[in-house]
Amino acid sequence: MKRHRLGVVGAGQLGQMMHQAAVSHGIRIHFLAEHDGDPAVQVCPSYEFGSPQSAAELGRFAAGCDVVTFEHEVVDLESVAVLERAGVVFRPSSTVMSSVADKIAMRRAVEEAGLSVPPWRIAADLGQLDAALGAWPHAVLKLSRGGYDGRGVFMVHSLSEGHAVGEQLLTGTTVLLVEPLLAFTLEAAVVVARRPNGDCVVYDPVRTMQIDGQCRQVVVPSGMPPGLDEQARVIAVQAAEALDVVGLLAVELFLVDGGLVVNELAVRPHNTAHHTIEACTTSQFDNHVRAVLDLPLGATGLTCVAAAMVNVIVDADGRDPADHLDAALALDPGAHVHLYGKTARPNRKVGHVTVCDDDADRAAARAWRVVAALHGDVPIELEIERQIERQVKRQEGIG
Amino acid sequence: MKRHRLGVVGAGQLGQMMHQAAVSHGIRIHFLAEHDGDPAVQVCPSYEFGSPQSAAELGRFAAGCDVVTFEHEVVDLESVAVLERAGVVFRPSSTVMSSVADKIAMRRAVEEAGLSVPPWRIAADLGQLDAALGAWPHAVLKLSRGGYDGRGVFMVHSLSEGHAVGEQLLTGTTVLLVEPLLAFTLEAAVVVARRPNGDCVVYDPVRTMQIDGQCRQVVVPSGMPPGLDEQARVIAVQAAEALDVVGLLAVELFLVDGGLVVNELAVRPHNTAHHTIEACTTSQFDNHVRAVLDLPLGATGLTCVAAAMVNVIVDADGRDPADHLDAALALDPGAHVHLYGKTARPNRKVGHVTVCDDDADRAAARAWRVVAALHGDVPIELEIERQIERQVKRQEGIG
Repeated sequence: MKRHRLGVVGAGQLGQMMHQAAVSHGIRIHFLAEHDGDPAVQVCPSYEFGSPQSAAELGRFAAGCDVVTFEHEVVDLESVAVLERAGVVFRPSSTVMSSVADKIAMRRAVEEAGLSVPPWRIAADLGQLDAALGAWPHAVLKLSRGGYDGRGVFMVHSLSEGHAVGEQLLTGTTVLLVEPLLAFTLEAAVVVARRPNGDCVVYDPVRTMQIDGQCRQVVVPSGMPPGLDEQARVIAVQAAEALDVVGLLAVELFLVDGGLVVNELAVRPHNTAHHTIEACTTSQFDNHVRAVLDLPLGATGLTCVAAAMVNVIVDADGRDPADHLDAALALDPGAHVHLYGKTARPNRKVGHVTVCDDDADRAAARAWRVVAALHGDVPIELEIERQIERQVKRQEGIG
Repeated sequence: MKRHRLGVVGAGQLGQMMHQAAVSHGIRIHFLAEHDGDPAVQVCPSYEFGSPQSAAELGRFAAGCDVVTFEHEVVDLESVAVLERAGVVFRPSSTVMSSVADKIAMRRAVEEAGLSVPPWRIAADLGQLDAALGAWPHAVLKLSRGGYDGRGVFMVHSLSEGHAVGEQLLTGTTVLLVEPLLAFTLEAAVVVARRPNGDCVVYDPVRTMQIDGQCRQVVVPSGMPPGLDEQARVIAVQAAEALDVVGLLAVELFLVDGGLVVNELAVRPHNTAHHTIEACTTSQFDNHVRAVLDLPLGATGLTCVAAAMVNVIVDADGRDPADHLDAALALDPGAHVHLYGKTARPNRKVGHVTVCDDDADRAAARAWRVVAALHGDVPIELEIERQIERQVKRQEGIG
């Protein structure tokens, strides 16, 4: 039997969901994990511990795999390049990973592909930063490397505020990407899967909502005019081809003045496409596995009219959403509750809820209600119902 | 964090698919496996080896679990009963398992629930068998215990043929269930999930097709008049309540002379509901896990107009369908190809293909085409296309 042995660098929830998808096709994944209890390690028997920053450990890991792919970008890419020259197959390649690991390299790559990006400048020192802030006092400062989920991104509203942030950040070899704070109409995202031979499939663009820089809600259809949905798809395919991506490419877009500009890229399964598990014929995880193993890609169409996904992020008080699984499942028998098995810590993403519905707004409202239940909050109408019941019982007791 | 520890006796493909479903909710399964390489053991890190026929091994296994459920019926039920008295929670219970492990006990239980069954007699010796065959020369002889997937079931067409089969089978304590060969219009199946508190959800009835006694194709909607679909649902709920099933109950039905009779019961995820993974809001595996852990059940409605599932059974020549995964995925990007990772042996069930479509017959046709591709067969229209291409190339070469 031809058995694919797919190596995945990283063992978080994206790896966990890749494993669930791979299992269906008889495909077995081997994970490079960093911590005991990583989400993928909890559910997959094949893994080893090691650091993707260590050339030796990465090399040892890759030796047992036909193909190696990634679940995150925090990898020593020079080691990956050395291993590639020794014949190890990484998908996406170190070249592609380099183009997205550094936000400045990413901007350049997108511009070279002929696609629109927001205005941007490099600030390697305070002088360059002040000059940029002089032009854009309302600005976004981004660490060129290492940021994710809103970390490493700072919004400032005056030159002095921006200067103060820069004083903290601009140490050593740190370089900042500076952009004007854009008055965008909405944020969208689109995911494309691409095989080594160039075959592509694209998912429907989604509308995303960030809170504190973290993706909180995703809705599909995007609600953009059909022309823009099509434009978003074309942008995604162009970017995937220009960068020669193999696997998934997620493109985050701003709609500014009626046009789309590319904000960010990621070359892995993406939080803006978790709804594809239930809302599309083939999930992003399934298509990622197929693409990197050079297998034919699956259909990406929606299987419902609309869908919404809301992330489950632990409250400041650290309450564990898993303690309220029962209440969440009871609240909406049609919702899809995903919990990754991660230990609850304030502000940590530990799951997501997807709802398919005939109406996107209703799907979102239903998903938020289930998320509230996971946080131990009782929806207001249920609370009212309970209070009325109590009232009635009291009156019956009196009467 | 409240972490459910669910023990599953058996580690075949049903366990594998239970694991995939449980993972999504942060629920972790611990398997009692019998062989290295069992499908669930390939994909889940938590298991131990032991025989469900050994009281000691079953007891050791159950000790680490909050709740224990089953993936098959080949279990020493006396040991289960002893462990239950010691406080171990089995769902379904040993009482329920006993009612379905023996086909004669099952028939009695169904009749006691007030439901229709085919005419039947017990044959414990050749005299009783001959008497039954005298009434029904066209008959089905079933071993009361240990049969599955068509094994242990024998169709005979005369008294002498039946007598000869009986001579082979009626040794030791063997008892046969004898039925007339029914001229049924169709075979249907319906699955219900039930919690300890009696809460139930029922799936849409399906139409099934057996070849050599093995389930080969499942189609939904069933194509029965709506009244019969509703009747099938009611039968399933009545049977689940009468037996006090916790978990899943699958009811196999014959439509005979316009009425439904109960043929078989199973208290576990069932081959006739594999399509629920993609075609229903909540899969049977998800609802089985929820039911036995006493969690609220998920919605069972179809998310598509129609669906078909066709089993992948290894050909007599032993060719491995996994070797043709590429061709199968290429043939139909909308099909759902499931391979369990089992070693290919002639006549072994190693996977299934599900297709959702707007039309049940088209869904079935598509699923069969993909299954043919897994067997290494090229669909006729593709073969014709290839031959024409070759012809054209030859002519171009000449011209």
